[in-house]
Amino acid sequence: MTNEIYQPGESYNYPLIIKKLLKSAITYAPDQEIVYRDKLRYSYLDLENRIHRLASGLKEAGIKQGDTVAVFDYDSNRFLECFFAIPMMGAVMQMVNWRLSAQQLVYTINHAEAKLIIINSDFLPILENIREHLPDVKKIIVIAENPSYPESPVEIYSDYDEMLKSSSPQFDFPDLDENTKATTFYTTGTTGDPKGVHFTHRQLVLHTLSLTIALGSYDTIGNFRSSDVYMPLTPMFHVHAWGIPYVATLLGAKQVYPGKYEPPMLVKLIATEKVTASHCVPTVLQMIVGSPAAKELDLSNWKVIIGGSKLSAGLATAANSMGITVYTGYGMSETCPVISLSTPKTTMMGKLTDDEMLNIVVKTGLPIPLVEFEVVDVDGNPQPHDGKSVGEVVFRAPWLTSDYFKAPHKSLELWRNGWLHSGDVGHIDANGYLQVTDRIKDVIKTGGEWISSLDLENCISKHPAVLESAAIGVPDDKWGERPLLLVTLKPELTDHVDENGLRQFMLDAAAQGHLPKYGVPDKIMIIDELPKTSVGKLNKRMMRTVYLP
Amino acid sequence: MTNEIYQPGESYNYPLIIKKLLKSAITYAPDQEIVYRDKLRYSYLDLENRIHRLASGLKEAGIKQGDTVAVFDYDSNRFLECFFAIPMMGAVMQMVNWRLSAQQLVYTINHAEAKLIIINSDFLPILENIREHLPDVKKIIVIAENPSYPESPVEIYSDYDEMLKSSSPQFDFPDLDENTKATTFYTTGTTGDPKGVHFTHRQLVLHTLSLTIALGSYDTIGNFRSSDVYMPLTPMFHVHAWGIPYVATLLGAKQVYPGKYEPPMLVKLIATEKVTASHCVPTVLQMIVGSPAAKELDLSNWKVIIGGSKLSAGLATAANSMGITVYTGYGMSETCPVISLSTPKTTMMGKLTDDEMLNIVVKTGLPIPLVEFEVVDVDGNPQPHDGKSVGEVVFRAPWLTSDYFKAPHKSLELWRNGWLHSGDVGHIDANGYLQVTDRIKDVIKTGGEWISSLDLENCISKHPAVLESAAIGVPDDKWGERPLLLVTLKPELTDHVDENGLRQFMLDAAAQGHLPKYGVPDKIMIIDELPKTSVGKLNKRMMRTVYLP
Repeated sequence: MTNEIYQPGESYNYPLIIKKLLKSAITYAPDQEIVYRDKLRYSYLDLENRIHRLASGLKEAGIKQGDTVAVFDYDSNRFLECFFAIPMMGAVMQMVNWRLSAQQLVYTINHAEAKLIIINSDFLPILENIREHLPDVKKIIVIAENPSYPESPVEIYSDYDEMLKSSSPQFDFPDLDENTKATTFYTTGTTGDPKGVHFTHRQLVLHTLSLTIALGSYDTIGNFRSSDVYMPLTPMFHVHAWGIPYVATLLGAKQVYPGKYEPPMLVKLIATEKVTASHCVPTVLQMIVGSPAAKELDLSNWKVIIGGSKLSAGLATAANSMGITVYTGYGMSETCPVISLSTPKTTMMGKLTDDEMLNIVVKTGLPIPLVEFEVVDVDGNPQPHDGKSVGEVVFRAPWLTSDYFKAPHKSLELWRNGWLHSGDVGHIDANGYLQVTDRIKDVIKTGGEWISSLDLENCISKHPAVLESAAIGVPDDKWGERPLLLVTLKPELTDHVDENGLRQFMLDAAAQGHLPKYGVPDKIMIIDELPKTSVGKLNKRMMRTVYLP
Repeated sequence: MTNEIYQPGESYNYPLIIKKLLKSAITYAPDQEIVYRDKLRYSYLDLENRIHRLASGLKEAGIKQGDTVAVFDYDSNRFLECFFAIPMMGAVMQMVNWRLSAQQLVYTINHAEAKLIIINSDFLPILENIREHLPDVKKIIVIAENPSYPESPVEIYSDYDEMLKSSSPQFDFPDLDENTKATTFYTTGTTGDPKGVHFTHRQLVLHTLSLTIALGSYDTIGNFRSSDVYMPLTPMFHVHAWGIPYVATLLGAKQVYPGKYEPPMLVKLIATEKVTASHCVPTVLQMIVGSPAAKELDLSNWKVIIGGSKLSAGLATAANSMGITVYTGYGMSETCPVISLSTPKTTMMGKLTDDEMLNIVVKTGLPIPLVEFEVVDVDGNPQPHDGKSVGEVVFRAPWLTSDYFKAPHKSLELWRNGWLHSGDVGHIDANGYLQVTDRIKDVIKTGGEWISSLDLENCISKHPAVLESAAIGVPDDKWGERPLLLVTLKPELTDHVDENGLRQFMLDAAAQGHLPKYGVPDKIMIIDELPKTSVGKLNKRMMRTVYLP
């Protein structure tokens, strides 16, 4: 059973470790399927076997407890194997965002002290450019996405599948201390070096348990339970694909991994594998909803959690009209990540109009079990749950990163008064639903009041000629800051309205009570294009520099 | 938010404590109902308020962290309040089985070092008899089940409801260490003093999370989710009513507490409150299924978990014929208690015949998440999962009692090789389902083989004239032990068969492969009545003394 020595009468000190989740899963669903694109399908028993082989191979490659293994891959069964094998052997899995710049990749891999890299052959060209700057990385294992990938100048230790074939299917996974570090990931801001968040076995187990309850035990919309078929559409490198692969495994659900995100393949997998549960950012849902192939499909069994950016009422309505159930999931890299889900409460079910339902699913959401959140003022005082008093969103949960790895000065801002400070601003309503409105740095502080840039953008977006908008605060001698609203118009409607007309539109909205009067910008500027970051987010930092009053 | 002092950058060390479960519940379902018989209904917000008042009152009465408070009550909202308030203030809730003998009550209350007793007025006569033997108990608080209960010579500190009314609704529940002892309960065997099992906050939180997942997230029969209406039919003093009140609260489900078990009231509550989820021993289900009032009811939404004794195929079939969903839950006082549930796996759903389904629900069950069990031989080696290799059932889970309180010598038998030894014997099949067949002391060990007394009893129970039976092992010079089968006949069929006829019936069963041949008893005795214990269980200890060969 185990090799540990126990004295008679000595109880087993059960640790909350990832090995235990896997054991429960294999007992429950040994024959359930795991699918990779149209290339591979195997059972949970095979998964277990491959996890043992992977750990045996990594041990043979010199990986010991405490070492870090960096993984570059698409969403795949191999990544899932790494989710279990690497932490279960006591090593740390670093999830690498292969979209980072070469400089950021070098920084994050070196900062994490990775000893070995497992990399999809499609990403070898990225590695070639940086290999010489990674002196701590001793070995490279390649996942041959295509059997005949181009030869690489990078020295390869082994092929992933070959290594599994030749390694022992019996690895004696230790009973680790539950506070052993299991995974790490780097989050990038608009300035400064990437910051390393990290999670222990205990944190991942508790995140999995709570999220499984939140998705399964409450009768609401969009439940994810054992008979669902799961396909992630958020990269697995992005905080464990929201931790949902662990949930899916514990449930013994069928899992489908799509590899590289290619809309025809995604739509094909949804249809042929009968996928019912996914999660993604709004643009991926938009891409699928807008694809011609999706029009032919019955998507009425598909449930999609939206995160990363705000789910708009428009996208939710478009998805609903195709039968898709959508709602919001919220969290951050620092939070493992799930904090809240925007499903209606059981006591609301059957009592909501379509509009009320829509208003709920686009909210930031209700805390999942064991999560506590508040919105606090600058002194840390919680604000009333009245749906309008704003403050910075702060969290407590059993799965929040304890600090930024080797960056204590950055952690000083993160953890204050025993609460993790999110940097998001929002309000909580009487039902307990959080609505995040801004990043705190984007809030416009005028005359002692906080104006939400999101509120201003939402308001002007209702004008039929407006394409996009961005509200920023600009310095003001009297008020501290005043809002400035930058707007682009739909190309066919540029002659339809001018800056005064837009301002009048907002004054009318304020008169009707949709905005506070002090929130109406003194100035609205129509411009050709809004400055954006390399990943397509509004670059308000640049706007504040360019559009001084 | 809290009064603790945190340094900047210092993360919150989130403890797994009962306070956190309650907070999640109140956020999710503040307006949900809790009902006591036809006497009282209030909301979850009221529950929270009363929990604060109860803690304030107990503090005023002198209860401090680490003190034990003993509770004697029916299944009620007050008991639920104690489930939360007492542990949340750092004290220990002792659940008292008021059916124990006066001597056992004195032993258990003194052994637990209870400082205060909360007691239903119906049980005051019991307390009167033993009060003078409880010197450590400083105060008595009475729950007035009826406003005008008879005057008692016992000195009363306060009336429960009066105390709540006059106490503060704001109690500052501390962030306890998660390993703080939260509850205790005494288990009684046929010999020796009762033994104290005890559970920490961490254990109860993890038991709650796992059981919530097991009951809600797997698509199977008999799910218990947030839209269910819960009514326990197992005493709350019996290992936290299987811990399900904590599950129901976390789910924000409607809860109905029936008070004293009176069949007309139970049936009335099921009907009027639309109860959908319960748990009980077979005799209580039998009582309800057999009651005339139940015949008038639609019970097709009622799901009942059966534990305590084996769910027979006959009772399951009778319940199913009334539309009731039934299956088995298994555990022990030592295990918090839930270990397994006998629901079909999701992958089996839709593929089972009625007989196959029946065979599953009467099994002991599949481990719930994080539970590990094996059946082991005398040297601790796990036996194959082949549905027939028997051994002692051993457990690991994050919620098993660490020892018997202040009885280290008794704990030596409980924990061996790092596994909790259940004293049950059984086998595990290829699908992972456990079947308990005997208590280990009731197994018949003959010629190196173990014969299950349950198998022999099941076999003879198929003879139409047999009423009850009991198989015991009797000493044998050659084989060590040989089975002896004691049988009572149905009164109207006593002339129908003799001892030789019964033995021939078993030989025929063995010839057909239903029993091993060495399992057929050399002797079968027809007797008038089987010796039973005071709680109606077969008294095999006495049988072994009386029916020597």
